[in-house]
Order: sequence, then structure tokens, then C-alpha cells
Amino acid sequence: MSTYKMMPETPSKTKRSILFALFVLVCFTVYMSYLTPAEFKYSPINLFSCPGRINNISTNTCLGVLKMQNFTCTVNIPVDKPPMTTSKPLTTAEKEEPETIILIWMWPFGVSFGLGPCSSAYNIHGCRLTDDRSLYNQAHGVMIHHRDIRGDLSNMPKLPRPAYQKWIWWNMESPTNSALHPPLKDLFNLTSSYRRDSDIPVPYGWLSEATEEEKNYTIPKKDKLVCWVVSHYNPNFRRSQYFNELVKYINVDAYGGHFNKPMSNDDYINLMHTCKFYLSFENSIHRDYITEKVFNPLRIGTVPVVIGPPRENYEQLIPSEAFIHVDDFPSPKELADHLKLMDQNEDLYRQYFTWRKHFISKRTSFGLAHACRVCDHIKKNKHYTVVKDINSWYWG
Amino acid sequence: MSTYKMMPETPSKTKRSILFALFVLVCFTVYMSYLTPAEFKYSPINLFSCPGRINNISTNTCLGVLKMQNFTCTVNIPVDKPPMTTSKPLTTAEKEEPETIILIWMWPFGVSFGLGPCSSAYNIHGCRLTDDRSLYNQAHGVMIHHRDIRGDLSNMPKLPRPAYQKWIWWNMESPTNSALHPPLKDLFNLTSSYRRDSDIPVPYGWLSEATEEEKNYTIPKKDKLVCWVVSHYNPNFRRSQYFNELVKYINVDAYGGHFNKPMSNDDYINLMHTCKFYLSFENSIHRDYITEKVFNPLRIGTVPVVIGPPRENYEQLIPSEAFIHVDDFPSPKELADHLKLMDQNEDLYRQYFTWRKHFISKRTSFGLAHACRVCDHIKKNKHYTVVKDINSWYWG
Repeated sequence: MSTYKMMPETPSKTKRSILFALFVLVCFTVYMSYLTPAEFKYSPINLFSCPGRINNISTNTCLGVLKMQNFTCTVNIPVDKPPMTTSKPLTTAEKEEPETIILIWMWPFGVSFGLGPCSSAYNIHGCRLTDDRSLYNQAHGVMIHHRDIRGDLSNMPKLPRPAYQKWIWWNMESPTNSALHPPLKDLFNLTSSYRRDSDIPVPYGWLSEATEEEKNYTIPKKDKLVCWVVSHYNPNFRRSQYFNELVKYINVDAYGGHFNKPMSNDDYINLMHTCKFYLSFENSIHRDYITEKVFNPLRIGTVPVVIGPPRENYEQLIPSEAFIHVDDFPSPKELADHLKLMDQNEDLYRQYFTWRKHFISKRTSFGLAHACRVCDHIKKNKHYTVVKDINSWYWG
Repeated sequence: MSTYKMMPETPSKTKRSILFALFVLVCFTVYMSYLTPAEFKYSPINLFSCPGRINNISTNTCLGVLKMQNFTCTVNIPVDKPPMTTSKPLTTAEKEEPETIILIWMWPFGVSFGLGPCSSAYNIHGCRLTDDRSLYNQAHGVMIHHRDIRGDLSNMPKLPRPAYQKWIWWNMESPTNSALHPPLKDLFNLTSSYRRDSDIPVPYGWLSEATEEEKNYTIPKKDKLVCWVVSHYNPNFRRSQYFNELVKYINVDAYGGHFNKPMSNDDYINLMHTCKFYLSFENSIHRDYITEKVFNPLRIGTVPVVIGPPRENYEQLIPSEAFIHVDDFPSPKELADHLKLMDQNEDLYRQYFTWRKHFISKRTSFGLAHACRVCDHIKKNKHYTVVKDINSWYWG
């Protein structure tokens, strides 16, 4: 069933009739598309035409405000399972100072995460996180995880967007590991990713000020010099090529399926304690793509040897002497020589832990951290904003 | 008077002595530099050497963590006038959940702004804004306004930076209008400017969702077609050249010193009401440099005709049909023809105000908005972070 409402601002009766007819068409299209999602080619250009356009300006540029018009057109949305929310239905008191509602449109990789309150985890108050799609028209933010967008965009929200609502493009995978969908223009309002120039940047980890207790730190006992755990070995990756050169000059304790030494997560943590150096080799090289592969060894007490973006990029988040960048050395042989020298000189090795006098390494809680930060951002930034072209920004 | 404290972690007695000697030297340098600011060439490289550096890695890259080491070295800081703060001295209760202290190191352009509470203005709680330099060692953030940094950096803070403290580079002028100081590497932790990729972006204005009352909007009565008010006329600016072409084809009511029609701020507001179009021509062309020249006419009820970054950049903040970009037309003549057409057709002209059904334009309160947003950011992001090179980011 569809119901229609229209705004009363059109200047003449004729225009009003045309707009109404147009609107019936839009709602019908939405309704039909919902019935036959596979066949429906979603595109904002198909959904909305441009009644107010003035010649001389391309029609493509008109989508921003129209997508945010406050037309409502109710379509029943199925809910596959009982919805999760962080709080009870709104009470009258809460309505007076309304919570910011963040709708997780799809669970990342199809896996739900706990929608625990943002207040205790991040000291962010007044947020209501939910996966209940029936709250779409009330939601201030709708989080859409890139990996889970279908190629034809058929699983995107079909309802028009209220003026206050933001759609958030959400992705923690690098461009190399993210499918490129063609029409991501004028579709989102905000971005959230590991990229520092996202609207809501969320790094994979960070160094936090250590408490007085945490400052008393002892480097764990070591019985291995260099370790590597790799879950996805591909001979064409730069990291594989570098590794194959490096092992000509130094012994590396290598683990993972490729080396016939699969590891559980506990094994991985227990191993890392015991290695002086760990190969924190990213699977692809992109600006700001600095992952748990670096923050884990820093947390556990091992010196990361990194392959990834340039040293300068790492130094924005990690003190320079906390890690080794392979580019610090002209070739794998010189790196191997340096690591062997560090193995011989405890004083020099200890200097890699100078930063631990002041900071500790922390991991981001995937999902909840994003949703809470998105909530906080939307609460503080209620202004109109459009991401013009995700593709050229992220993959360009 | 100087007092010194040192951390007890150095590995040997000899090293401890060297570090102590080095530290006496650093404190002495700081103290001397304070006495003779003009002669003191401030540079983080001069202030801190790299005791923990390992060969093979350039010494320049070691500054990040050392600048944040928790050494203290007290120097009396003069206060020119009674300090302004937003709140009373901390009480015991407040100390348990400490306020975030933001120190305005220098007033932008030498002019103070009201340090009103962030809670009422921006719904940001737990901030204490102050210009009291004696709070330096307690401050979580120190805001340093680019325009007011001396070329030799002699008016920068001289005390070492506590581990938790962030220095914020703060600038709302475009690169063209900002002096380029050579050594802004590894010196700041965060940036705040109009640039969307700043750590704390603050636009010159924004479109906010209109209340029901604000949605009832009538376009002000007009008796002029095109207006321009220019405070700084320079014949070499792109805007002057475009204006000189445009006036060959259409009458423009031009005001400001260059046209022998100086204007007060009230005159400017009163004028803008009465113009159908206003030339929102930026003084320099830079990404995201979209100033009050656009947000003022949108607020007052006039259609801006913009010169600035590309249309796509404007459309990130402003609906596409709310403004005209000079690049929409092949030449000033075609723009003039279009404006004359709009003058003849009220219905077409009214379509430029479609966005007003949903949004209103607001201006940023310079100074307070920055300080409160910086406070909120620092409160929520306590991690180690360094801006590697302001110059290449902003002017590059």
C-alpha cells in the first residue's frame, strides 16, 4: 500500500497537478522496484527528475536537494529478524530532546555486531543505534556498508530521503579490495573510512596516552628474531616479493596456510610476544591504509617492520622510532643486516620502545566505533552536505 | 627561574649524564630565547635532539614523539592582560572528570572574541576556553592562529609539549592570502581551517534544516538586478577581469572604495535584500574556499553568482540550483543574457529559491566555533597524531 503527501508550495494549480502526477509515478516506481528488486535498476537519476531546473545547467547536478526533499511515500519494508536497537521506544521526555537515530542499513559482511551504548564505550551521548528499517523515516543517519551494496544497487534504501537524513558511505577495505560500482555520484552525504580525509575518519588503531600504571612497561621476552603471519599469500603482492628476497639473508618464522602452519587468533597473539620484529606487510599500498597489522604488534610488544604507504604517512599516527619502514633501507639485504645488528645489541633494540613511556596502542572496535562516531558527527554537523563522487575520491 | 625534571628510563649512567646535560642546554636555550625573542630562531630541530635515534633513519623524522615527551622545564610566561576564561577555577568535583582546556595562544588578528560557553552555543560540554598562558602545562589543546605566527616563530610556545597536548594550526585565509613560513614540519598535531580535509573543518557557513516557521519564506522585494560590493579591488584578480567584461553587457550596481561608494555593514545587508543577483566573487580560487560572500546572499535572500572553485565543490555544501557559477556559461555575455532572462521571468527566478523550502543559510561565528569544535575533537580523539608538513598540504 502506498500513501502520498505533497508539499503546498507549488506556484500554480497546473504545476501542482504535474508535480502530483510525477509523484504518483515516483512512488509507483519505488513500489514496483521493491516488488522486483533484481530487475530494478536503481539510480537517483531514474528516481527523481528535476522539475525546478533552469536551462544552461546540466540536469545531473540537480539531484542533491531533490533527494533530500521531505516528500513521504510509505512502503512496507520487510524485517528479516527482530530488530536490534540500543534503547527502548522513545518516551515523551526523550521526544522533547530527541535522540540521534543511526540506522545500520545492512550488517557489514552480513555479520551483526553488538549495538552497545555509545555512552559507555565512547562517551558519546544521545545516540540510538538500530537495524530496524521501519525507523527509516525517523533516522538521522543511514549507514551503508560498501562491501554489501549489490552491483545494481538493488539493496539500497528505496524511500525518498528526508531533508535531515544523511546517508553514510562506510568502508574499511582499501580501494584494491573494494568492488567499484559505477554510479556512486550524488548518492551519499558523508563518508566514513580509515582515510583521514573522510568526513568521519576511523583509523584501524591509535596510540593513546598511557596511564601511570601502563607506563611501567617491560618488553616481553623474545626467542625469535623476525616473524610473519600471512592469511592471504599472493606471489604478485609486493609483500610476497619482498619477503622472498628478505629470507635469502635472514631467517623468518613464517606462519599461515601458505607455509603449512595455520594459526588461531590465540596462537597469533602468543607468537607475537616472542618475536623481536614482526613483518607488518599490508596487502595493498594506499594512503592511510595502516591496519591492525601495525597496531597489533605495537600493542603486544613487538617492533613492526612495515610495507605500506610512505614513512611520512605512518608518522602521522605512530612515532617515527616505533617502527621500521622497508624503505628506510636500499634493499632487503640491508634491512636484514640491520635486524641482525639489533639482535646483537639490546640497548639499541630497546630504543624502539621509547614511545611506550607515554603511549599505548589500541585497536578500533569495528562497527560500533563507526556507528557511534557517525552519530556524534551527525549530532554536531546538521548541515546540508553531499559527496559528489565517491569513485573519483576513493579510487581516483 | 628554571627547574628541571628528568625521566628515569635511560639505560646507563653515562647516557643519563649526557641526557641531563642536553636537557640543561635545552632549557637554557628556551630561557634565553624567551629573553631575546627576535634573535631566537625557533625550530623543533634546534630545540630537541634525538637521543634515541638509530642509524639509517634520518634525524628529521624523530621529532614527533620527542616534542611530546613529558619533560617539564618551567619558564615564567608573561600575561599582557587579565586572562579570559569560560569558567571558574576547577573544583574538586570537576577535577574528577576534568574539563578539556583549550588555550587560545594568540588572538586572531590581535582581536579577542567572546569565550562564551560551548555548551549553549554548540551543545558541546566540558570545555574550558582560555587565553591564560599560565595554564599551558594543563592545556589539552593550544590554538595557534597562522596569521599571527611571526616569521621567525619567536612567538610560538617555548615550553616542551606534554604527551597529551595538541597544538592546532588554525587558519581561515586561503593559501594566496596566507604568509608561507618555512619550517612548519612536525610542529602541529591538528589542523583547523575551512578545508574539508582539515582535522577539524569549519566552513564559512552552512545550510541548516529550516524549522516549520522558517520554511514559510517570501523572497524579499527587489529593485536591482545585479549587485557587487568589493572591499579589495585588484585589477589582476580574476573577479575584476570578469566584472569588467560583464558590465559591457549588463548593468551592475557596484559598491566599495574602488567605485567611490564605500559601505557600512548595515548598508551591505540592506542593499543585498534588494538585488536579484549578487556577485559572490572570491578573491582567490582554492578548493573549499567558499566564503561568507556566498552564505550571506543565501541568508539574506539573493541569488549568488559565484567565482571560486569548480561548481562540483560548491555543490558539496550548497544545492545546485541555489546559485549560478560563472563557468555555467561560455562567456560573460551569455551570463548577462541569462540574468536578463531571469529578470523577465519571475517563475524561473523563483526556482533559485527551491532549497529555501527545506534549509536556511547560517554563518560561522569566527573564533568561538573553532575553539569549541577543537575542544570537542580533542575530547573524542585523544590519540597521538602529527601533521607532518603544513606547507605541502596547504600550499602544495
